[in-house]
Amino acid sequence: MPSKYPENTRLLIEEGLRKYFPKTRRPKEIYEAMSYSLFSGGKRFRAVLVVESARVFGRDPEFVLPTACAVEYIHTYSLIHDDLPAIDNDYLRRGKPACHTVYGEDVAILAGDALYSEAFRLISGVQEADDPRRIIWVINELATASGVAGMVGGQVVDIKSEGVDVDAETLDFIHEKKTGEFIKASVRAGAILAGATEAELDLLTDYAKYLGLAFQITDDILDEIGDTAVLGKTVGSDKRQEKATYPKVHGLEAAKEMAKLTTGNARDMLKGLNGDGSVLAGLADFVYERNY
Amino acid sequence: MPSKYPENTRLLIEEGLRKYFPKTRRPKEIYEAMSYSLFSGGKRFRAVLVVESARVFGRDPEFVLPTACAVEYIHTYSLIHDDLPAIDNDYLRRGKPACHTVYGEDVAILAGDALYSEAFRLISGVQEADDPRRIIWVINELATASGVAGMVGGQVVDIKSEGVDVDAETLDFIHEKKTGEFIKASVRAGAILAGATEAELDLLTDYAKYLGLAFQITDDILDEIGDTAVLGKTVGSDKRQEKATYPKVHGLEAAKEMAKLTTGNARDMLKGLNGDGSVLAGLADFVYERNY
Repeated sequence: MPSKYPENTRLLIEEGLRKYFPKTRRPKEIYEAMSYSLFSGGKRFRAVLVVESARVFGRDPEFVLPTACAVEYIHTYSLIHDDLPAIDNDYLRRGKPACHTVYGEDVAILAGDALYSEAFRLISGVQEADDPRRIIWVINELATASGVAGMVGGQVVDIKSEGVDVDAETLDFIHEKKTGEFIKASVRAGAILAGATEAELDLLTDYAKYLGLAFQITDDILDEIGDTAVLGKTVGSDKRQEKATYPKVHGLEAAKEMAKLTTGNARDMLKGLNGDGSVLAGLADFVYERNY
Repeated sequence: MPSKYPENTRLLIEEGLRKYFPKTRRPKEIYEAMSYSLFSGGKRFRAVLVVESARVFGRDPEFVLPTACAVEYIHTYSLIHDDLPAIDNDYLRRGKPACHTVYGEDVAILAGDALYSEAFRLISGVQEADDPRRIIWVINELATASGVAGMVGGQVVDIKSEGVDVDAETLDFIHEKKTGEFIKASVRAGAILAGATEAELDLLTDYAKYLGLAFQITDDILDEIGDTAVLGKTVGSDKRQEKATYPKVHGLEAAKEMAKLTTGNARDMLKGLNGDGSVLAGLADFVYERNY
């Protein structure tokens, strides 16, 4: 992992995920399926964003840990449902068989559902804030970003675009909704809980928009040129399914240039903040550098 | 519909559902799928419980309408996912083709997901309360009841019990988790928002437990003896899938006796309340009488 990734934060989140994971009750199988997908590695990128965004305002990571873990639940839920045979039909995820490959389609659908509910249960049950209305606000942001005007809407357009010639505008729509909105909500969640003002939130929102775009462009580039061993998923799977990608729509070189530009824009947004945005800036660099 | 069902409340909820349903954006198809399942009739039983439970404490129906509608979103989401080919594989719901039959498995999974997120978006975005912590509390109750320790857990045991001889204890577990917990959470949600004390909540929780049990037993009886035209789903579908039911485990006559007993218990719980529990009592009667 590149040096700029906040590894300590990642480890803290792993600990939090283990601490907050619901005690296994009956039936064991569903907890196993949830746990299998939740603890299958990963950078915990979105959860790290929650923590590091709160840190800009001087808040300890522990303060936003429940919400950071909830964000990771939602991300995992979305991956489980994405991989389903009826949706992307991916049998590998992070180098291991996907949830449905191991536990069957029925249990995988329900494990995704359960992780989604667990996210809201965790925030509403454990997260604290100086003003409880900020907790409600965070729930609203995460529900919206993962809902029909966000993740779900993006996924539907993505599915319906398979095998179709996709224009640049549709590609932007897909990625903004499918990935961008939730990255934005993760950054905002940490800042909202930490008591950020509207002006501070605006800056971080713009940072997150550029970060999310850089993330998606580099993801597409990795899928085009990356290595299966590094990615842990089948390389070229986007292309095989004829999905819209930045290299496909804009060409590989132009996509690389776009990644560079948006990373720079993300960094620029942090300059207006009073607090220390250095870790968030490092995360932008990490996103840009991971594919070179 | 029997005379004791609070038809005015049901109509108010229909109005609320139309008012709060998200404005159609891109892609149209997912909004259509959500809308198709949400507006396919139904008694709005759980939403009615939210409203009528709040009314016991003198609150107007409008006061809890966002949460009542959210409860209906969650119920609809659970039906869409239950009906999926990978789960119960039901192609009919309320006399119409199921969501996946019309929109395909992929869109149906995502329409369920979207309705679930919409529920939390609605409560966190629109619901008001004298103390915002009561909104967080309600979110926690609904997330828990629809999650792994509730609806999802019950559904998994139900799936795994198909074709297996199920004992009375497992049957109780399935129904308590799959149906009971969410009926309980609906009753509690209305009371929590209305400012109920812990003692009042305890009484209503016991009412809801008995009501949920009566609901499930009569549902099973209806599936055994009912008429397809009335039910709007294939009669005998539980039996065909060799699912655990009360008539199957206890016999039809004993199941009828249990329904009568639990309905009486539900009514008894309301006697300790200061407020007017007459509509809730009528709902218990409605549940009991609907199959005779």
